[in-house]
Amino acid sequence: MNTPLQISQRGLEMPASPIRKLAPLAAEAEDRGVKIYRLNIGQPDLPTPKKALEALKHIDRETLEYSPSQGYKSLRQALVSYYERYQIKLSPDDIIVTSGGSEAVLFAFMSCLNPGDEIIVPEPAYANYMALAVSAGAVIRTVTTTIDEGFCLPKVEKFEELINERTKAILICNPNNPTGYLYTQKEMNRIRDLVKKHNLYLFSDEVYREFIYTGSPYISAMHLEGIEQNVVLIDSVSKRYSECGIRIGALITKNAEVRKTVMKFCQARLSPPLIGQIVAEASIEGTEEYSRDVYEEYVERRKCLIDGVNRIPGCYTPIPMGAFYTVAKLPVDDTEKFCAWCLQEFCWKDEHTPQGCEGETVMMAPAAGFYTDPELGKDQVRLAYVLCKKDLRRAIFILSKAIEAYNARQ
Amino acid sequence: MNTPLQISQRGLEMPASPIRKLAPLAAEAEDRGVKIYRLNIGQPDLPTPKKALEALKHIDRETLEYSPSQGYKSLRQALVSYYERYQIKLSPDDIIVTSGGSEAVLFAFMSCLNPGDEIIVPEPAYANYMALAVSAGAVIRTVTTTIDEGFCLPKVEKFEELINERTKAILICNPNNPTGYLYTQKEMNRIRDLVKKHNLYLFSDEVYREFIYTGSPYISAMHLEGIEQNVVLIDSVSKRYSECGIRIGALITKNAEVRKTVMKFCQARLSPPLIGQIVAEASIEGTEEYSRDVYEEYVERRKCLIDGVNRIPGCYTPIPMGAFYTVAKLPVDDTEKFCAWCLQEFCWKDEHTPQGCEGETVMMAPAAGFYTDPELGKDQVRLAYVLCKKDLRRAIFILSKAIEAYNARQ
Repeated sequence: MNTPLQISQRGLEMPASPIRKLAPLAAEAEDRGVKIYRLNIGQPDLPTPKKALEALKHIDRETLEYSPSQGYKSLRQALVSYYERYQIKLSPDDIIVTSGGSEAVLFAFMSCLNPGDEIIVPEPAYANYMALAVSAGAVIRTVTTTIDEGFCLPKVEKFEELINERTKAILICNPNNPTGYLYTQKEMNRIRDLVKKHNLYLFSDEVYREFIYTGSPYISAMHLEGIEQNVVLIDSVSKRYSECGIRIGALITKNAEVRKTVMKFCQARLSPPLIGQIVAEASIEGTEEYSRDVYEEYVERRKCLIDGVNRIPGCYTPIPMGAFYTVAKLPVDDTEKFCAWCLQEFCWKDEHTPQGCEGETVMMAPAAGFYTDPELGKDQVRLAYVLCKKDLRRAIFILSKAIEAYNARQ
Repeated sequence: MNTPLQISQRGLEMPASPIRKLAPLAAEAEDRGVKIYRLNIGQPDLPTPKKALEALKHIDRETLEYSPSQGYKSLRQALVSYYERYQIKLSPDDIIVTSGGSEAVLFAFMSCLNPGDEIIVPEPAYANYMALAVSAGAVIRTVTTTIDEGFCLPKVEKFEELINERTKAILICNPNNPTGYLYTQKEMNRIRDLVKKHNLYLFSDEVYREFIYTGSPYISAMHLEGIEQNVVLIDSVSKRYSECGIRIGALITKNAEVRKTVMKFCQARLSPPLIGQIVAEASIEGTEEYSRDVYEEYVERRKCLIDGVNRIPGCYTPIPMGAFYTVAKLPVDDTEKFCAWCLQEFCWKDEHTPQGCEGETVMMAPAAGFYTDPELGKDQVRLAYVLCKKDLRRAIFILSKAIEAYNARQ
């Protein structure tokens, strides 16, 4: 009877976040006075819209009370207008406001999948999908996309090989984190046909829709005809308004049974953040100029990063079509070792090093954390272009020096 | 292969929230112009501390960025001082900031329990424990406390009867929601001995510690000696500072393995709400006068509600020692029917009815939702005393009239 205190099996299986694993080494480096260029995390440095910050200052409530479990209707209404801009027609009832996109993913898994059910995800993939799947007891099966093919969608056969009676969903991130890939109309149609043929859920994370840099159209899962009941859209205001901290996302579906179930999980956590909803609502309307400026900025940063990385001998990255990440191949033996080494051992100093710094280095996310196959991604890193161009240029220069020094070690 | 789109088993099993089930009926009543006195939900009407609201207005950040997954150190530091007032000695590392107390409960279950593991909970119990247990695949087993015994802790034998190899935890809420009961030192010692003997986790939800109305001491699970590794404290700033909407809670434990595991779940959801943390931190220090005023107010409301209810013929409620709820017995056949009837059929009007109203009624939480045994709680309701005294008095009067009218129906 007297069993020892245990940690749950899922707790043991939960992967540690690959983008946070290096955080202690970064903290140590900073303690030594080293300046770090953070290319590792999708935390935009850009300001939140002024209109949103103003709304925050003008909250004149006396009591910061619970909001409805589904989120304020006025916010859901504003989101309806927002999606109209993208030819996505919704009613406020289709929208459930969540604590960040993360909660939307978790509740989608919790509501649609039984323990042991399988989700097919193109990899490399956003690492927290794996963690959230473990939370729900679901199993992520991956179809591999490759840097050599620019991370395009694998052939239908690759999906079909994995489909069995436990397969319940396909999960895509479009535009993609970590690769920056944007699915074409053809690819989206292939996904639609698969979903229809096998009657799967399609979980579609589209939080980067504002950041599409080519002439290619944005094809939402919500645009696909004939699978309206299968689609669960995952969204978040975090990235598009540079307000990751307010924790406002959304789960959107035309499937009333799914919504009814998700709402039970929503009621169990009472409500999404009240103040975040006020900020999010203020961010949606009247911020077109802000969005345009942000977009222009990312266009330039993307060019700056991609050109810079591709000029480093032995480095290669495809040109990402969307989001603000890219996966790059580096000429090193193991990027997990290399990224740790950059923080622990390496430090560059020259006449451009800011005064008072011991030196400078770069922080990147080793790509292995975005693959389930332990053999993949060992020579790749995910780079986020969330720094200003000046810093990006400096970071790329330091990266080139770090690669030289790393490969010149004994 | 082509299985139909399914809702997950846990989604089907998730109980709908008993305190929100009547919401549509309430909305309809309000549409008809009926004024509703809401005794059903623990949403205090009291203002948030001015200092906290001021902090909100003075946020001068340009970017509302992610905060650390564990929560800001400055908030955790402030919480350390807060707990010192209650002779609970902590380091900031022991504290993990969560999105409300709900997330703390969920992550405790997720980290410590496997699907099928059992948690013993005295009932009636906070209904969302059941929902959060279903989320984690854990099973709630209940020991029944009775209104006739004032909801005191059942004998140790009642717990022992339920303990088997799947029993992994005891969960208490102290002071209790929904009963207002406060565990005595003796009772807490009995829980400690049980936890120690069977090496169980003790999840202790103590969000109402500020609201203790008798001379009895507050015994935290954190005060119990010899089970330091077993205790996981659940907390929230929601109730004590009337800021339920900011969604800031905490999971606190001396058990480093548990913390390490909980942190993986925290990283998967990235971070707790940024703005909520700023508001919470401002609420903790320099608000002693606020807390005293709030306390005095609840002392009076408690007296007002308890005296009033016990004066209605056939009604009975024990005197709650803490929190701001009580469970009362009503002389009706079925409180689920009665509470729905109050919203659908009943409406009182006299010379005191506010102008412009069609009439007035009361909203209560039928107690059946707080019991797992479907036979229990049918003649009970949970009443929250979160209205001002004037409204409470009026609500009690209307309740008495509703009972009369209900029992006089054909």
